[in-house]
Amino acid sequence: MFDTLFRLERNSKDALYVQVYKHIKDSIESGKVKAHTKIPSIRQGAADLGLSRRTLENAYSQLLLEGYIYSKDRSGYYVSDIGDSVISANTHETKISFVPKPVPNRYFMGVDHFDFTAWRKCYDQVLLYENDKLLTEASPQGEYELRKEIAEYVLQARGVHCNMDRIVIGAGVQVLLGLLSVLLREMSIRSIAVESPGFTEVQHVFKDYFLDIKPIPITGHGLHMKELMKSKARVCYVSPTHQYPTGAIMPVSGRVELLRWAASVDGFIIEDDYDSELRYSGRPVPSLQGLDSGDRVIFLGSFSTILLPSVRISYMILPERFYRVYRGYMDKYRQTVSKTEQLVLAHFMKDGEFQRHLRRIRKKFSVKHGIAREALEKRLPEGIFVEDSSSGVHIPLRFERPVRMEELVEKCSAVGLKVRPITEGLLMFNFAILAEDKILEASDKLAELLEESFV
Amino acid sequence: MFDTLFRLERNSKDALYVQVYKHIKDSIESGKVKAHTKIPSIRQGAADLGLSRRTLENAYSQLLLEGYIYSKDRSGYYVSDIGDSVISANTHETKISFVPKPVPNRYFMGVDHFDFTAWRKCYDQVLLYENDKLLTEASPQGEYELRKEIAEYVLQARGVHCNMDRIVIGAGVQVLLGLLSVLLREMSIRSIAVESPGFTEVQHVFKDYFLDIKPIPITGHGLHMKELMKSKARVCYVSPTHQYPTGAIMPVSGRVELLRWAASVDGFIIEDDYDSELRYSGRPVPSLQGLDSGDRVIFLGSFSTILLPSVRISYMILPERFYRVYRGYMDKYRQTVSKTEQLVLAHFMKDGEFQRHLRRIRKKFSVKHGIAREALEKRLPEGIFVEDSSSGVHIPLRFERPVRMEELVEKCSAVGLKVRPITEGLLMFNFAILAEDKILEASDKLAELLEESFV
Repeated sequence: MFDTLFRLERNSKDALYVQVYKHIKDSIESGKVKAHTKIPSIRQGAADLGLSRRTLENAYSQLLLEGYIYSKDRSGYYVSDIGDSVISANTHETKISFVPKPVPNRYFMGVDHFDFTAWRKCYDQVLLYENDKLLTEASPQGEYELRKEIAEYVLQARGVHCNMDRIVIGAGVQVLLGLLSVLLREMSIRSIAVESPGFTEVQHVFKDYFLDIKPIPITGHGLHMKELMKSKARVCYVSPTHQYPTGAIMPVSGRVELLRWAASVDGFIIEDDYDSELRYSGRPVPSLQGLDSGDRVIFLGSFSTILLPSVRISYMILPERFYRVYRGYMDKYRQTVSKTEQLVLAHFMKDGEFQRHLRRIRKKFSVKHGIAREALEKRLPEGIFVEDSSSGVHIPLRFERPVRMEELVEKCSAVGLKVRPITEGLLMFNFAILAEDKILEASDKLAELLEESFV
Repeated sequence: MFDTLFRLERNSKDALYVQVYKHIKDSIESGKVKAHTKIPSIRQGAADLGLSRRTLENAYSQLLLEGYIYSKDRSGYYVSDIGDSVISANTHETKISFVPKPVPNRYFMGVDHFDFTAWRKCYDQVLLYENDKLLTEASPQGEYELRKEIAEYVLQARGVHCNMDRIVIGAGVQVLLGLLSVLLREMSIRSIAVESPGFTEVQHVFKDYFLDIKPIPITGHGLHMKELMKSKARVCYVSPTHQYPTGAIMPVSGRVELLRWAASVDGFIIEDDYDSELRYSGRPVPSLQGLDSGDRVIFLGSFSTILLPSVRISYMILPERFYRVYRGYMDKYRQTVSKTEQLVLAHFMKDGEFQRHLRRIRKKFSVKHGIAREALEKRLPEGIFVEDSSSGVHIPLRFERPVRMEELVEKCSAVGLKVRPITEGLLMFNFAILAEDKILEASDKLAELLEESFV
């Protein structure tokens, strides 16, 4: 496995585990190592290379998360099939370069996007007239007032049917996935299928709760169903409305297929409705939960992305079988969101301010997206293309000429342009944080820096 | 193990697992089963009794948490030594009855205890003049402004020496212990010693992160050191300022012994500084962290207990070795506390409002405690005694005559008296939620209900 020519460089700016990771990744991508080949165990690899097991573990984790290798229970690690049949539609995506900061910075907003006056009015309401409620601890599941508003909102906006009793509130999607991991184990479910590539921030949680992660390649239609079957997982995590990092939307055929799969294995789907509210053209994409007649979808939503980045309120909607297990857990874990902020948000929603806010940011993003897209299409150097996208806060740029990515990212950051590399051939450009009258200038600058960065 | 006379009652108001739990507990307490006897595996016990493994697991978990049994790696479960030598000082505490709601309700406060005007002023400051800060996501570690205030506060109030870089903020002690569990595993630490009896809410977290929990009996001086040594654990969790549920304070000799232990095993101590701020007589008890010269204490503090029950802000202070591991994790987990509330609290502390608040509630609790104690001492029926306590919001009542506890708790709850049973011989009475002029009346009522509940 480890080429005799493979030498670790102690003075490299890459950490040792990154060097190991890159070496294995290159061997797989170049086809030097065939699919389903067994690779050395962590112990053996560490011995071969004279490194600590920790270093090997880190390298293997990254490879697992990105889907280059897979593990079989008690048998070891094997090279994944990343062959052309699987990801043929997006060949440029199979070459995933190491992204140093795996947490996407999805929580930025322009200064003109939020109505602080209306928000403060809700605080006043709570702090002046309802402050007796603040003298007792929050309900472990979340405040009644907020769950009621969320139930109405998800029905109207996302076609999600739910009883407010099934809503659980928590300080971020990671907190809720932690609780969910505990519930999965209670239900004797030990492994979970995830999109590959996908949200590493979600996978950290599953991993830290010792769930066995099964990365499933994504195709143009959603998850690669054969691989999903093969994985033997009964639960999968997907973000069908806005697959991270590509922003792809799972077509309804893929959704239906996924629901059929869940029914056939008596399984469940965790639907992270990430960024669904940020679609600013076309019709809203229906939620999986709304399509589901079998009570097999756990729906996850968050206010951090769309309301205010500093607000940490997310929610999940549990199918009945999960809810029953959760009831036994309710007393064990305290609520993580401030009661004040829950009540404030409930007022904001009840007063119609949240809907007004959504309309406002959708409009703003749509205008900005139009300006940025047009400007980039005119200015981009040859070999770089604007990919289709009609949601979110980023414009995806596809490279068909090699670019010195790290240098590019650094230069952008130095002049205040927010970009995020996803693969060697894909870069996300955040237009949403820019004021409208700065977008032309920013697009010019980006085009210039791109030109400078060709290899 | 399972007496041939042991019959499960399907119609009992006790759940099946509670019946199993009680049966085993009684066998151990009565001496029918000797210390270090191996008990059936979960699988075997389930087969013997014709119950699900889940039921047995629940019963064993409860017994483990309360220290009646212990587990050995890969070998199974054994009866703990609960003999007189270990807990001789508190014999009435060895008879721990099943407490249906294991989460202590420590977060109640009287309506006159909090200055909402000052609090709201801090919100205005943030929402009006610093709202640009709310447009970006919170720092994963916690806001600079708040960490700065906490560093000053813990030094002045608790003698804790720390650099603000070492402070990590989270939405409650459970969130921080979850992160800590991940760090412990990163450091290849797989087991943790905890006080027995102790905070079940803390133990759930360790358990859900698959740490092997070693319950160590408490003595008059702190942890039973021989048992701690025997456990082979390298990390222990203690609440030296206010051991839950007894409220006992670990004497300095016990603290020094614990620090010596940590140095001798190259280990660490997690110090939960629970309720230290609520001492209203005598001098503050020094923190373990302040006594420690070896950088071996993780200090945990929370604002929920003392500030406002609805606020979910806790913090931990990491020794350098933990901090280095944490650095690698920072990007993986997002901050769980709302940035708004962090900044508001930072203002509240900076303006001196937090100190004023502490002085106010200490004074109020001290007055109320005096009234309640005096009233109860006059009115309590024979065989019930007020135990010494000079902190917290409860007066412990010790019973030397058998009492129908469940009935008593129900009756108290029906008339609005907050009591919490700890063991068959110990009941905590919350005086702090009562208005001053209601305490005499409440004490009368409590005395009356106690009289009615004698067996």
